[in-house]
Amino acid sequence: MTEFKADAAFEAGSVFAVDWPLCQIRLQDDARFPWLILLPRVDGAVELDDLTPPQRAALMEEVVRAGAVVRALGLAAGRPIDKLNTAALGNVTRQLHIHVVGRRRDDGLWPDPIWGRPGARRLFEADRELLLRAIRGA
Amino acid sequence: MTEFKADAAFEAGSVFAVDWPLCQIRLQDDARFPWLILLPRVDGAVELDDLTPPQRAALMEEVVRAGAVVRALGLAAGRPIDKLNTAALGNVTRQLHIHVVGRRRDDGLWPDPIWGRPGARRLFEADRELLLRAIRGA
Repeated sequence: MTEFKADAAFEAGSVFAVDWPLCQIRLQDDARFPWLILLPRVDGAVELDDLTPPQRAALMEEVVRAGAVVRALGLAAGRPIDKLNTAALGNVTRQLHIHVVGRRRDDGLWPDPIWGRPGARRLFEADRELLLRAIRGA
Repeated sequence: MTEFKADAAFEAGSVFAVDWPLCQIRLQDDARFPWLILLPRVDGAVELDDLTPPQRAALMEEVVRAGAVVRALGLAAGRPIDKLNTAALGNVTRQLHIHVVGRRRDDGLWPDPIWGRPGARRLFEADRELLLRAIRGA
């Protein structure tokens, strides 16, 4: 078993939070949205059909779990979300990953998708640590 | 059992293709990309966690099947895709739906996501019929 490694591109914009049974869970370092990234720890996976059906079913359940975490982060920040946005894109970084983002009607980009748009704002370190603790405890 | 009904917003931009076990499969009426929309036939569903775990597992498998169809449509058109883009957004139309889109590096919007961007081009009727036949036979 080789050690799973997140593509270096993820290191630039997100931080490791926790390992769930299938996925490495990362917090996107962007104060605008509660935003998790799920990386299935399956070497070489790019598309969903690079996973086995049991891995895909596990991924679906971890996506739902991530949605619940994102909802909780929004609530805890006093900004409950209006809609989850879930996407596997990978046009920029091919390693299979799923975005789970909490959106609000007043979030500045609504109703457009958030990817490929400027405006990211890094989290303050104290906020980042609070969020990471909440994700690890969820 | 009430009859499932796609939101009228889908009628404006896409056409019914076929019913799979869980989802109504629609062809997005846009000549730029091979693009399917999956609507789980579950009344009132908005988020993934409005489905039961077995429905979610079935959805995942239908998403993968849709990806294979999108790949085949790209090949048949002589424009093999470089990446699948899969997303459940729903900021504009809340009824739960999943986009499965075939992207190419030369598709004009690459690497950005395609939603919320202008430029849709309707399919010619003959092309639309060919695509619907291919989807129904897949």
